[in-house]
Amino acid sequence: MRMVDLIAKKRDGETLAIKEIDDFVRAYTEDRIPDYQASAFAMAVYFQGMNEQESAALTKAMAASGDQLDLSRIAGIKVDKHSTGGVGDKTTFILSPIVAAAGVPVAKLSGRGLGHTGGTIDKLEAFPGFETELDEDTFMNLVNKYKIAIAGQSGNLTPADKKLYALRDVTATVNAMPLIASSIMSKKIAAGSDAIVLDVKVGSGAFMTDLPAAKELAQTMVNIGNELDRRTVAVISDMDQPLGSMVGNALEVKEAIDVLQGNGPEDIRRLSVRLAAHMLVLGGKAEGVEAGEALANDLIQDGRALSLFRDFIVNQGADPSLVDHPERLVKANNIVTVQATASGYVSSIDATDIGRAASMLGAGRMTKEDSIDHAVGVEMKAKVGDWVEKGDALVALHANRDDVSEVISVVKDSYQISDHALEERPLIFHEMI
Amino acid sequence: MRMVDLIAKKRDGETLAIKEIDDFVRAYTEDRIPDYQASAFAMAVYFQGMNEQESAALTKAMAASGDQLDLSRIAGIKVDKHSTGGVGDKTTFILSPIVAAAGVPVAKLSGRGLGHTGGTIDKLEAFPGFETELDEDTFMNLVNKYKIAIAGQSGNLTPADKKLYALRDVTATVNAMPLIASSIMSKKIAAGSDAIVLDVKVGSGAFMTDLPAAKELAQTMVNIGNELDRRTVAVISDMDQPLGSMVGNALEVKEAIDVLQGNGPEDIRRLSVRLAAHMLVLGGKAEGVEAGEALANDLIQDGRALSLFRDFIVNQGADPSLVDHPERLVKANNIVTVQATASGYVSSIDATDIGRAASMLGAGRMTKEDSIDHAVGVEMKAKVGDWVEKGDALVALHANRDDVSEVISVVKDSYQISDHALEERPLIFHEMI
Repeated sequence: MRMVDLIAKKRDGETLAIKEIDDFVRAYTEDRIPDYQASAFAMAVYFQGMNEQESAALTKAMAASGDQLDLSRIAGIKVDKHSTGGVGDKTTFILSPIVAAAGVPVAKLSGRGLGHTGGTIDKLEAFPGFETELDEDTFMNLVNKYKIAIAGQSGNLTPADKKLYALRDVTATVNAMPLIASSIMSKKIAAGSDAIVLDVKVGSGAFMTDLPAAKELAQTMVNIGNELDRRTVAVISDMDQPLGSMVGNALEVKEAIDVLQGNGPEDIRRLSVRLAAHMLVLGGKAEGVEAGEALANDLIQDGRALSLFRDFIVNQGADPSLVDHPERLVKANNIVTVQATASGYVSSIDATDIGRAASMLGAGRMTKEDSIDHAVGVEMKAKVGDWVEKGDALVALHANRDDVSEVISVVKDSYQISDHALEERPLIFHEMI
Repeated sequence: MRMVDLIAKKRDGETLAIKEIDDFVRAYTEDRIPDYQASAFAMAVYFQGMNEQESAALTKAMAASGDQLDLSRIAGIKVDKHSTGGVGDKTTFILSPIVAAAGVPVAKLSGRGLGHTGGTIDKLEAFPGFETELDEDTFMNLVNKYKIAIAGQSGNLTPADKKLYALRDVTATVNAMPLIASSIMSKKIAAGSDAIVLDVKVGSGAFMTDLPAAKELAQTMVNIGNELDRRTVAVISDMDQPLGSMVGNALEVKEAIDVLQGNGPEDIRRLSVRLAAHMLVLGGKAEGVEAGEALANDLIQDGRALSLFRDFIVNQGADPSLVDHPERLVKANNIVTVQATASGYVSSIDATDIGRAASMLGAGRMTKEDSIDHAVGVEMKAKVGDWVEKGDALVALHANRDDVSEVISVVKDSYQISDHALEERPLIFHEMI
């Protein structure tokens, strides 16, 4: 079938055959279909959507467009977790050692990425010497022996998705639900795990700002996973304010250790435990989510999760004493407090703005070439629902630069103070099992 | 504004500012906007449409993207006619000498084009020696003196439309109403006439196969014309079967002369007179369409239209005796009759198939490089509503090749024979004045 006819078919709301989708993805990856046809196709998908079978076929074809990890040498059910991205999300560092301690293998490939802070790999590099370039044998052996390894993505994973995403980014076709879902899921499928827990964020700091859209994205991804024989569950969680107190690379690692030590803010602890519980169920280590939560809490309380985290840090070449003394991790030179200009209840905090503030301090990169300052970031001193007096600290900026006036202004604008307390927003809105 | 934001704006159904449309057209013409953004934009327009002001702005910007004809040296109100294209449409050769004979200047630029037969210029070249490359002075002087000249398009007319149309053709975005309308109207605006009569075809042989779509296109173009201060009227006419009896280049010229001599098939005569009447009204030569029709009929009956056609042929270098003896125009070697395989009423004739048959005989070109055989074509012996006995001629193929079996099969399939007579389909469905 000619590409122009395929575009017309989708434009007219018809259903594409699996072979048509396969052929498109293969030809586009091999540069045999020009960008101007792919972008018109993406816009047609934006308006006409794709059904479950089409979305699954697109996902599978994109996963198959490059290297695919074969995790069969690792014993057990490999369960992966993916978050759609938010501000202050350090759940990976908490739930990974928890489920590994329970015997669920964590064989994770992570990226650096652009954004308000670094990606998982950047954050781990807050531990000096931490090695993320692992050869395949080392990676597999570590997971088999210690149940956990996290490596940087290497090789040629989902080139079709990379190429299509770059095109969508400049043609206003990012926000097409089946394209978002297949982009995420193709990477998960290529990464080789048997089951997937999705953490779909909703709110001011998330890609999906409203619940119906978040639900639709979650449902689309769950359907794709199940179509492709990966048990997939989704949790829709709040991202209307930053998660936990810390936003920044070393700051977030510290907070994760805090949680593994049995402390830390309640929201990040609860969400990590809940996600871990779903992973434990999928990994065959708990009968149900409640049992999974109990197990996860036990693994924190008795120190086994923290102990496994220490092993993990050692295995990948960093100093384990930093796990016990996270205060020795890299620190910023200046702490600048941003104060409330009025008394009242904190009624909202724009999470994207807080992320932007962290990025302005140097915690994230805007282009691939930028370097990251692991030390800097934003520490939330007041969160939604808290009462603050005029002059109380809203946040503490951890900065390595002298002039932070612009950052202060961004932070101030992100806070809304109200006379009366608001109804509490749930941390978890919905679960799809 | 960045192009990606412009695409998003249209994608979300918002109205674009005139300046945004201007900037887009200019930048796209100058290759400063890549095709992949223009095609995504075109698909967004397909789904979200454009309002009158947007469509007019797009038309004006595309008209201004290249050369624009200045017809101010020609006295009088210049009225142009445009047909959206059909099979057997030779109205141009009939109505042009009629209105010129009444004193309405016809300063027409025409193309060759691809399709089932040649374009206006190709058909005129059925007169040996007919010159279509006229320099500007010659063209203007001919129109001022004889009220008529028809030249081939030269120069750089509407490059934005050419570029965008080529892109739409391969991205399934041809059928976007504002884009169709602005493409047609931009060429008319650039061609410099003061008023425009549009003949929008509807039926099996037309771009618009159903009446609501034809009406929408007509209304969109009329609105654009009026927005841009060109008095514009539209006639929606039948193209569910070929117009007249002749499909092919010399064959169509012969039939046009036949009509100018006061004979010829009723449909082509009636439509030509009606379109001429609208042109006479716009050109200030008739008070209303009925008066215009009466004047047009008079100009045929008293031979003045034919006489002017003779002048026109002489002026542009061809032999006027051919106008009085059209039987001397180039003829095909073989006449092959296609016969009815059953008796009954002709209930339908697929006009596109008849066009395809003519093209297969060599009357049209598929690529710009193809040459045209002016002699060949299809002569309709039975039209919709006619009673035919089994064995009666349906068409006569005028062919210069020996094997026409495939063409015969196409023609046979295009005819539907029925037991009972159908209600007559109108020749003119609607007029927008």
